[in-house]
Amino acid sequence: MSRLSAERLDELYTGTLKIVSMRGFDNLTMDEIAAATKCSKATLYRQWGSKASLVVQALQCTAQSRLELADTGSLRGDLRHMFAVRDRGDNDDGTQLMGAILHAMKQDPELAAAVRQEILQPIHERIGTLLQRAINRGEIAEDSPGIPHVNLALMAPFVLQVALTGVEPDDEFLYGYIDGLVLPALGIH
Amino acid sequence: MSRLSAERLDELYTGTLKIVSMRGFDNLTMDEIAAATKCSKATLYRQWGSKASLVVQALQCTAQSRLELADTGSLRGDLRHMFAVRDRGDNDDGTQLMGAILHAMKQDPELAAAVRQEILQPIHERIGTLLQRAINRGEIAEDSPGIPHVNLALMAPFVLQVALTGVEPDDEFLYGYIDGLVLPALGIH
Repeated sequence: MSRLSAERLDELYTGTLKIVSMRGFDNLTMDEIAAATKCSKATLYRQWGSKASLVVQALQCTAQSRLELADTGSLRGDLRHMFAVRDRGDNDDGTQLMGAILHAMKQDPELAAAVRQEILQPIHERIGTLLQRAINRGEIAEDSPGIPHVNLALMAPFVLQVALTGVEPDDEFLYGYIDGLVLPALGIH
Repeated sequence: MSRLSAERLDELYTGTLKIVSMRGFDNLTMDEIAAATKCSKATLYRQWGSKASLVVQALQCTAQSRLELADTGSLRGDLRHMFAVRDRGDNDDGTQLMGAILHAMKQDPELAAAVRQEILQPIHERIGTLLQRAINRGEIAEDSPGIPHVNLALMAPFVLQVALTGVEPDDEFLYGYIDGLVLPALGIH
C-alpha cells in the first residue's frame, strides 16, 4: 500500500464502494472497478490481490471511520452518536451498498467470512462496548434479556427500512427506532 | 390461470422461488424459469406476463400460506405461531430468497412497488392485527412507543441473522428474539 497516499486510497475506496452499490458484487469485474477508480487493473491486483479483498478493505475503512465511539454519558446518546455519524458522509447509498454486500455474501462464502470478521465483528464489539458502559453506569441490568439481540435489531433500519418503504432512514427515523424499540427492550424508558 | 391445477401451480411457484434464491432475480431469464419449472416459456408469459409478476405471485402465495394468524390468547403465542410456521415448509432457503428479492427491489422499482404492496403490506397488516388484539386484551398500551417499530424489528432475524452468523435462525433463536427483544420493547416481560 505504501505508494498510495491516504487521500488517493480514500478516493479509491469510495469509488469502489460506489460501483459495488450500483452494480452489485457478483457481476462486477476488476475492469469496471479500474475504470471507476481510474486505477490500473495491475495496480488493483498487486495491492489487493482480489476483488473480494479490495471490497472488504474498502468497507472496513468506511465502517471504521463512520462508526465513531463517543461517551456521551448515556446509552441513548452513545447509540445516537454511533449511528447518526454514517449520515454525515456524502455517500447516501449506504443501504444499497449493504444490500449488495449481504446478497453477495450468500453466494460467496469467502467474502462472507471476510465481511463477518472484518466488518460485522468490529461493529458488534463496538455495540458491546456501549452496552457494557451502560451496565457500568447502572442504566441497564447485566442480565437484561435484550442484550444478545440488540446487535441484530440495530441493523434492521439500515438494511430493511428502505425495502419496506422505499425511503432511506434519516436521523429522525433512527432516533425514533432507538428510543421506541431498542432502549425500551433494555428497560430504559 | 384456469388451466393449471392448484397442485401444479404450487409446484410451479415453488420451483420459481427456488431458482430465484439460487440465481438471484436480476440475471435470471424466463428460459431458466421454464426449465426449472418444466413449463413452456409461452405458458409462463401467457399466464403471468412478466418475470416480476410471476415472482411476486409466487411470493404472495407462499407468504399467505405460511404466515398463519392464530389467536393463541397472548401476543407471545401469536407471534410464535406466526413466525414459526415458515419453518415447517420443506423450503429451507427462505432467508436466501428474501435476500435475493431485497437486492432485486433496489434495482427494479416496479418489482419493489409490487413486493411492497403484495407481500410486505399484508405482513405488516397481520402484525398490526396481532398488536391490536394485544391492545384489546390489555397486554400492551395503545400508545406504546415500540408499536410503530415492531414490523421492522421482526424482519431482522429472517433477513440479517444469516449474514451475521452464517446460520439460518431456527425456532429457538426466533423465540429468544421475540421474548428477549420484541416483547420487552412493548412492555411485556
